[in-house]
Amino acid sequence: MNRKMVFYTVGNIALVEAALLLLPALVALIYLEKSGFSFLITAALSLAVGMFFILFFKPQSRLIYAKEGFAIVAYAWLLMSAVGALPFVLGGAIPSYIDAFFETVSGFTTTGASILTDVESLDKCMLFWRSFTHWIGGMGVLVLVTAVVPNIADRSLNILKAEMPGPTVGKLVPRSRDTAKILYWIYFGMTAILTVLLIAGGMPIFDSIVHAFGTAGTGGFGIKADSIASYSPYLQWVITAFMFLFAINFNLYYLMLIRKFRAVFKSDELWFFCALVLFCIGAITVDILPMYETFEEAIRLSAFQVCTIVSTTGYATADFNLWPGLSKALLLILMFIGGCAGSTGGGLKAARVVILFKSIKKELKRLLHPRSVKAVMSEGKKLDDETLNGVTSYFAVYTLCIIAVFVLLSFEPFDFETNFTASVACFNNIGPGFGAVGPASSFADYSGFSKIILSFAMLLGRLEVFPLLLGLNPLIWKRSKGN
Amino acid sequence: MNRKMVFYTVGNIALVEAALLLLPALVALIYLEKSGFSFLITAALSLAVGMFFILFFKPQSRLIYAKEGFAIVAYAWLLMSAVGALPFVLGGAIPSYIDAFFETVSGFTTTGASILTDVESLDKCMLFWRSFTHWIGGMGVLVLVTAVVPNIADRSLNILKAEMPGPTVGKLVPRSRDTAKILYWIYFGMTAILTVLLIAGGMPIFDSIVHAFGTAGTGGFGIKADSIASYSPYLQWVITAFMFLFAINFNLYYLMLIRKFRAVFKSDELWFFCALVLFCIGAITVDILPMYETFEEAIRLSAFQVCTIVSTTGYATADFNLWPGLSKALLLILMFIGGCAGSTGGGLKAARVVILFKSIKKELKRLLHPRSVKAVMSEGKKLDDETLNGVTSYFAVYTLCIIAVFVLLSFEPFDFETNFTASVACFNNIGPGFGAVGPASSFADYSGFSKIILSFAMLLGRLEVFPLLLGLNPLIWKRSKGN
Repeated sequence: MNRKMVFYTVGNIALVEAALLLLPALVALIYLEKSGFSFLITAALSLAVGMFFILFFKPQSRLIYAKEGFAIVAYAWLLMSAVGALPFVLGGAIPSYIDAFFETVSGFTTTGASILTDVESLDKCMLFWRSFTHWIGGMGVLVLVTAVVPNIADRSLNILKAEMPGPTVGKLVPRSRDTAKILYWIYFGMTAILTVLLIAGGMPIFDSIVHAFGTAGTGGFGIKADSIASYSPYLQWVITAFMFLFAINFNLYYLMLIRKFRAVFKSDELWFFCALVLFCIGAITVDILPMYETFEEAIRLSAFQVCTIVSTTGYATADFNLWPGLSKALLLILMFIGGCAGSTGGGLKAARVVILFKSIKKELKRLLHPRSVKAVMSEGKKLDDETLNGVTSYFAVYTLCIIAVFVLLSFEPFDFETNFTASVACFNNIGPGFGAVGPASSFADYSGFSKIILSFAMLLGRLEVFPLLLGLNPLIWKRSKGN
Repeated sequence: MNRKMVFYTVGNIALVEAALLLLPALVALIYLEKSGFSFLITAALSLAVGMFFILFFKPQSRLIYAKEGFAIVAYAWLLMSAVGALPFVLGGAIPSYIDAFFETVSGFTTTGASILTDVESLDKCMLFWRSFTHWIGGMGVLVLVTAVVPNIADRSLNILKAEMPGPTVGKLVPRSRDTAKILYWIYFGMTAILTVLLIAGGMPIFDSIVHAFGTAGTGGFGIKADSIASYSPYLQWVITAFMFLFAINFNLYYLMLIRKFRAVFKSDELWFFCALVLFCIGAITVDILPMYETFEEAIRLSAFQVCTIVSTTGYATADFNLWPGLSKALLLILMFIGGCAGSTGGGLKAARVVILFKSIKKELKRLLHPRSVKAVMSEGKKLDDETLNGVTSYFAVYTLCIIAVFVLLSFEPFDFETNFTASVACFNNIGPGFGAVGPASSFADYSGFSKIILSFAMLLGRLEVFPLLLGLNPLIWKRSKGN
């Protein structure tokens, strides 16, 4: 294990976070909010921690193998969240550190589950930081570090692999650093377009920026008690469309940019995802039609809620807790599936669902014709056994994690629906569930113990379990080769 | 497709069922119940159907390939249930045919979910038939046919494979027919011992026989409104022990009979299953201790409920709906896992859970050391890829089925907990769930549509999805080779 490189990289993350913390401080300056000092204090602390790591752990070798990648990602995300929670406590917005940690993890993991009961009373700099964590966490802070820190970039594929969601991680271009840069440029560009469209629709500039952050990261922290419900239908439609767009594999956008349209249309995942979203919007619209006055309202609310759940964003324009059973059941399924691989969305990922279906089909064929073995095809290529086994064991561990979180929540006095969907919504990085954690409520009433469990669930879900489990496992530190 | 052999075998099933129907008719004679005629009428009908099939479909070839096996099992189970439901309607016990079909499927699949609200008002012959269906379905009617009908026995491995639960089906002895006979002798012997132990404990003879049927098949239909709760602690302990024993792989009993004890102790599944059951009994006892007066009562209720759920029997001595969250969460996990492979228990099967854990472990190792590929070991042998893929795709289709049933139930006015656990309890062949389908309630209030869905779910779960789906798929009839 190359310990020094792990600490060195984590130190770089702390420096990057210190720089990022200056942005909410700037917001505080614009709006003349005293709580802005908490960001400066935290930035200074983060800078000190980062410098300490960088100066004391000068790596001789810059090699990053798989296990270094996992350790870097695991510790980086824990440090980022631990540090990112401080401004909320120092600024008085969230007095309890556990609550602040939950809120920050929820931010970075783009979950959007909140313990705040009166979000409108917060200072603008605090609201900005909450939403900004979504934007940072959406594409991944290590992808950002890879893009901007030259010393780390050269050998960073194993970091990208550990941080980026989905069954297979493909580099767009030969160098990891360039891949990271391209991804961030697309991400930045789409966020900018969304911000402009929101401002053009009459949303105040501050609101537009924070909602663009929350949409781009598929996070879901809002700044109003009723989330997006009080904004105009135009603004709701714009956000709906962008939640959908940010849940699509960013590789496809790159392919479009380099005009490889045929490759885009070959994507099984894209077809499955579009069909799923359209079907659910249609079915839910019909199901909720009697509850609303016009067809436009029903389809708008249906489309918004479908896209917010499937992209695992978590904004809301309607309390789907009050919707009929079929609509709730469909939304529950979408909670499990989530966005596409290589997007900012969470969940199991549409690509994995497609591969699971194919593996079922393969098994059916094998049972009927035991002697003819056919390979599973995916995205026009033969799917190798490694990826197939990776997907099916991920599915097993995914189910296991949700069950484990649910069992650990069972000490709470909430009902089955609340605890179950709280586990699902946190692990899949969605935000709101059903029952007492529905879109009109918050996670405030959970105990400190459960908030820590749920924070861990969010991190597990965002990092897709294995990197966090392996990275935090002390055993991987022992078998040290080199330094 | 060897159509004639499929119909011929299904015809034999109808003959066997006609013979089996004479037993409740005999019970009616003993207790002088007029409703016993309904069994004679049904037996005559079943005989006629069977003779028709056997005379008109004389197979030239007795070959049974995989697809014939699936078709035979699928149609046999549907026919058996359709015919077996008639006495309930003809005898007036259950006026609605859909209700009677649900009850009979629940019987044969050893689910034990009931639509009856006043079970104590039923005639003894009806109660006997309900419980007898558990006993028949537990080990499998085709295993029985294989054991007793010589014409079919020679080539019946593909029938055994399709009907018997678990990831791999091993023949105990070279000939399928002998395997089937050994299994039925062990099954019969254990049922007889249980009956004697119950009678010795003061349970009336009729009660002892029907409860032995329900326990042996891990079914769960009771004859009292409070299931087993009003029987003495001794009787409750005996049933607890036998529910556990019937949930263990019958191959292990055979190994014990031929004195291969070392092979028994090598079974990963057995160790996992025992550890799981003991852990859950311990944890739930501690959790419910404050609710009961003595420690004996708490541990007895905990052990009974753990064994009833993990063996997927469904008897009850306490309304676990009223237990604290942790106990309910543990029981919910046990609902998913179920018994051992090759037992009469349902669920995912402990063997599959063990293999899933191993596949997760394999993936973790692969992520850390991408180049060293190690085989997964199971039961002291190398686990082949086919079994591993079979287990992981079964897990995917298993999850998919539960979700699909849950969605189809969402038209019902019940709460999330009720619909979710109803799907889980029916698909895993357990019986009671939580909420409005808890151990103190019934499935009576579900609509006819939902009862049909749930009946299908029980069949899917009992036959482990693939045989039913493939057997009922018209496509497998088309590509006919031979006749």
